[in-house]
Amino acid sequence: MNYTIFGESHGPAVGVTMTGVPAGLELDMDFITAELDRRRPGRDPLSTPRRETDRPEILSGVFEGRTTGTPLCAVIRNEDTRSGDYSGIQNTPRPGHADYAGHVRYGGYNDYRGGGHFSGRLTAPLVFAGAVAKLLLRPYGVEIRSELSMLGGVADPTPEQVESVIEEVKADGDSVGACISCAVTGLPAGRGDPDVDRNVEGIFARQLFAVPAVKAVSFGAGFDFAKMRGSQANDPFIWEEGEVRTSTNYAGGINGGITNGMPVTFQVAMRPTPSIQAEQDTVDLKTGQPAKLSVQGRHDPCVALRALPVIEAAAALAAWDVLNL
Amino acid sequence: MNYTIFGESHGPAVGVTMTGVPAGLELDMDFITAELDRRRPGRDPLSTPRRETDRPEILSGVFEGRTTGTPLCAVIRNEDTRSGDYSGIQNTPRPGHADYAGHVRYGGYNDYRGGGHFSGRLTAPLVFAGAVAKLLLRPYGVEIRSELSMLGGVADPTPEQVESVIEEVKADGDSVGACISCAVTGLPAGRGDPDVDRNVEGIFARQLFAVPAVKAVSFGAGFDFAKMRGSQANDPFIWEEGEVRTSTNYAGGINGGITNGMPVTFQVAMRPTPSIQAEQDTVDLKTGQPAKLSVQGRHDPCVALRALPVIEAAAALAAWDVLNL
Amino acid sequence: MNYTIFGESHGPAVGVTMTGVPAGLELDMDFITAELDRRRPGRDPLSTPRRETDRPEILSGVFEGRTTGTPLCAVIRNEDTRSGDYSGIQNTPRPGHADYAGHVRYGGYNDYRGGGHFSGRLTAPLVFAGAVAKLLLRPYGVEIRSELSMLGGVADPTPEQVESVIEEVKADGDSVGACISCAVTGLPAGRGDPDVDRNVEGIFARQLFAVPAVKAVSFGAGFDFAKMRGSQANDPFIWEEGEVRTSTNYAGGINGGITNGMPVTFQVAMRPTPSIQAEQDTVDLKTGQPAKLSVQGRHDPCVALRALPVIEAAAALAAWDVLNL
Amino acid sequence: MNYTIFGESHGPAVGVTMTGVPAGLELDMDFITAELDRRRPGRDPLSTPRRETDRPEILSGVFEGRTTGTPLCAVIRNEDTRSGDYSGIQNTPRPGHADYAGHVRYGGYNDYRGGGHFSGRLTAPLVFAGAVAKLLLRPYGVEIRSELSMLGGVADPTPEQVESVIEEVKADGDSVGACISCAVTGLPAGRGDPDVDRNVEGIFARQLFAVPAVKAVSFGAGFDFAKMRGSQANDPFIWEEGEVRTSTNYAGGINGGITNGMPVTFQVAMRPTPSIQAEQDTVDLKTGQPAKLSVQGRHDPCVALRALPVIEAAAALAAWDVLNL
Repeated sequence: MNYTIFGESHGPAVGVTMTGVPAGLELDMDFITAELDRRRPGRDPLSTPRRETDRPEILSGVFEGRTTGTPLCAVIRNEDTRSGDYSGIQNTPRPGHADYAGHVRYGGYNDYRGGGHFSGRLTAPLVFAGAVAKLLLRPYGVEIRSELSMLGGVADPTPEQVESVIEEVKADGDSVGACISCAVTGLPAGRGDPDVDRNVEGIFARQLFAVPAVKAVSFGAGFDFAKMRGSQANDPFIWEEGEVRTSTNYAGGINGGITNGMPVTFQVAMRPTPSIQAEQDTVDLKTGQPAKLSVQGRHDPCVALRALPVIEAAAALAAWDVLNL
Repeated sequence: MNYTIFGESHGPAVGVTMTGVPAGLELDMDFITAELDRRRPGRDPLSTPRRETDRPEILSGVFEGRTTGTPLCAVIRNEDTRSGDYSGIQNTPRPGHADYAGHVRYGGYNDYRGGGHFSGRLTAPLVFAGAVAKLLLRPYGVEIRSELSMLGGVADPTPEQVESVIEEVKADGDSVGACISCAVTGLPAGRGDPDVDRNVEGIFARQLFAVPAVKAVSFGAGFDFAKMRGSQANDPFIWEEGEVRTSTNYAGGINGGITNGMPVTFQVAMRPTPSIQAEQDTVDLKTGQPAKLSVQGRHDPCVALRALPVIEAAAALAAWDVLNL
Repeated sequence: MNYTIFGESHGPAVGVTMTGVPAGLELDMDFITAELDRRRPGRDPLSTPRRETDRPEILSGVFEGRTTGTPLCAVIRNEDTRSGDYSGIQNTPRPGHADYAGHVRYGGYNDYRGGGHFSGRLTAPLVFAGAVAKLLLRPYGVEIRSELSMLGGVADPTPEQVESVIEEVKADGDSVGACISCAVTGLPAGRGDPDVDRNVEGIFARQLFAVPAVKAVSFGAGFDFAKMRGSQANDPFIWEEGEVRTSTNYAGGINGGITNGMPVTFQVAMRPTPSIQAEQDTVDLKTGQPAKLSVQGRHDPCVALRALPVIEAAAALAAWDVLNL
Repeated sequence: MNYTIFGESHGPAVGVTMTGVPAGLELDMDFITAELDRRRPGRDPLSTPRRETDRPEILSGVFEGRTTGTPLCAVIRNEDTRSGDYSGIQNTPRPGHADYAGHVRYGGYNDYRGGGHFSGRLTAPLVFAGAVAKLLLRPYGVEIRSELSMLGGVADPTPEQVESVIEEVKADGDSVGACISCAVTGLPAGRGDPDVDRNVEGIFARQLFAVPAVKAVSFGAGFDFAKMRGSQANDPFIWEEGEVRTSTNYAGGINGGITNGMPVTFQVAMRPTPSIQAEQDTVDLKTGQPAKLSVQGRHDPCVALRALPVIEAAAALAAWDVLNL
């Protein structure tokens, strides 16, 4: 199953074209809508106030409520866009954002308004694709769960801590980074290969690093392995309910690039939203002079709060790939 | 440029077949041999005593000392193999190793001797391929440097600390994990794309997770982003020598999946070698009973010591891909 | 550059999502519309009377009239669909059509109305994609020309012969097959490789066989090679205007899978439209009984008449791939 | 399953690296050897007298006689090479051969001796890979049969006609082209897709055009479709032994890019061997002057005689891909 995310923040629409979706899947639009709602802005006072209904229109690949097996294209129209907010940034790239890298990459022709194709809005069609993958995984008993495991240095924050950190960051016109941990249960043992194309860790990482703001991906004990001994890190094999399992899961369900039947567990780090109100140093690409920039407009103080369904979407797409190896 | 690593630890040979190698490259065999020597076992008392010359034979793709542009196959014969050492493990998978996952994946047909295709020996042809990539990158001024950034919990260890940790671990018949940090300098700005196939972080991660024992990959500030605010994490743009640069490099040279012209910096975590002498709990796949296992044979207490050229090889292959996007 | 064609004949829309389109291309909509008009039905009395405006809406990837370098999605709404015409065919597959193969492939879930995803209407977005490729090729001097080289057994038919054959076929409620020959000029020598993925003949064939009804692809002298001797078939090399050329071009511009600088010439055979009014033998998939079928509805007596821009589109997409090898 | 053919005619070896070979296949070396013998030169007086044993050495991917599921590398050493024969051709490319196109493609760095990587000798590892595919297809009941369907204009030649044509051509120091027709039986209905990547015709064509000298590929009635009416060309559906079949098979077992359960039938045209003794016009790439060339050395008057197992190999690899779609 492959997909292409398309669209720009202030263009006519964002969307996704999926190929290789198996035929006959009942496309549960209530579930898909609920997933989209989980990442939708404007739901609560902690997120950006931009309001959009995010209702996808299915252009192809679905007939009488079920997938046809031919390419599925879903489109979400852009409704509430205020282009004026962003016009100033064309020549003064926002520090931390893709403005400058994108400008060089696309020779200045990319749509700079609202981040264009780099906008967090492009995660809506990704959530759509991930929701389709979740529906596909369901009959195989593969499930995905994620949670915020760190916010601004606070590990496993309670809702109160989340609110307090966000309020503080917001008051400062700043943003903050976070970690999300995720577990994929139900994947059978023996999927994957050690090589560069079919390595399970690589397959997950490929999807996860395509999520905007993700800067690190670790499996199982991750960076803590660097503090461990083999005698601690090796997960002992046991028999349980007639199956081979491990009594610990430091390996995150993967050995040698292949699933071992335990939950695939991983953690991602997401950088703070680059768009902040505080004044920052940048350059003017036209004049070649230093410049100052303060980003106005509507921005999340922490993208990770709305990113759980996005990370889960990437994980679901990876899990479906792994299941079909 | 694509490559396929082939071979098993106790088969006739290991090797690599590379396609898309540009024609006309002078294949500096002294350099390639020096790279292979950096990862070769048996060089110093801290590593496994298995001795092999690791001299590659070029079967194709090179004519009069230069690459022809057609597929390049290089083979390294296996010389010093003692199959007897491993016969016991066929039915009792080593905890932490790919034995069990590989057994399920390949229906019990994989070569279990010495880890077979999962052996660390397979990193020799990877280093060969990486050395070719380094030679290709050289005229573009792209360079790769790596160092051990953590060993058994000791950050940025001195040579004395390395020796002390390894001796201690060895004495215990144990192994230990580590981190390697790496910088790729010289990549121009504007390479890559945000999507799942051409994202620069994804391209590096794909190569790095194919290195045995790598369990985590982070770029720039990596997991520290989860403790940072945007006002700290955003790298301010500056003009320097007529170029746009950033005064810090928390982003690790990548914004929105695209290079920004700063060094691409990343860190990987490597798990402790699973093969340890200490007795471990496992299962007998034939009898369905619990079993005990103590791995004899020759093993590195820490693969990371020899892994610098391997990580650099993966980085070089990724950097060449990125340069050609 | 990759693309995905999506849509069903009687669904909301057909369209194409393109990735890897270079940034900065001025999207000449007049040219694209003219190309779409060349394949549009209803223009003349020889073709199917279904009328559609075929005006594409660009959903993404274009900003201020130029491509952004990020994915381009273009959608053509379906307007004039009469679903009732096709309801009878659901269980009685049309001989020669993909009805049965598609039914098995997609487990009966594919949209059978009007051929669904197999409809000739899906060639409209292909022509769109090909027009983009033609615009990209233009500054490189690469041009594509095609002509009807056989119709119902008449070689190189004149307009009068075409009209006469079609009228006769139409009067019989039948359809007829054809050949199209095509030349791609301007491709430089030295693009391609002999291998399975980068062979120039393979790259063209891959695109051409994806055009509905194409059943044969030949390069240069094609099947006539089987009648020739090497002394006739070998194209002698000559110097002309300071360049190496050949005095004949039996090889169709390709030797060993690599362009030699001469025009890439090829011919395709297109089968007769399967949908004919004459009564045909088929089966009833529900009852397991033989059945009779006479296809009503609006159909072209010869798809090849409108297929020139479609074949050129496939050739343009292949030529762009070859140019970028 | 993917494969890379490597090697040069006068280098140390030719070979193939295969990935994705399922584990547990008993590698019947007698069968593989028999297939290699079918294409081996020097067997009879009609072919080139170059003698080689063509015994492959398996370097990896096989353990205790069965495939391991990890990459399989097989190498065939070059034994009987006479480099001196070819030295003259370096600057005077042979008409009809890849010499010139390869020279431009690889900047003059390719191994020109004996055609280097373009040598017909590279079909030996292709036959090896195809033999593996045939062994994989065997339990699925998929079989491949081919025959010479035209030689130098003689359709369906008898052995006597073959001998007579070849003797005549040989006496003239010339070569001759041919057609091979092939049938793949046993592929189930419903494999494939209409799109550019998974179209069954495209999958076969991709493999077939990678065979040296193949210049045309047609399915079913092929170019004869251009002479047919729909009422003739449409294969009527019938029930037979409880299955849907067609009473004719003009479609060559494929509708809309998807198998319909009937034999996949195709025909290829192979150009005459470019290497002929007759004097030909060429150019001197160094001096920029016209030149004359008469190719000495050992050459087949018709590659198609030995090409049956090669075409079958390509077909087997394609059929395995199609079976696994």
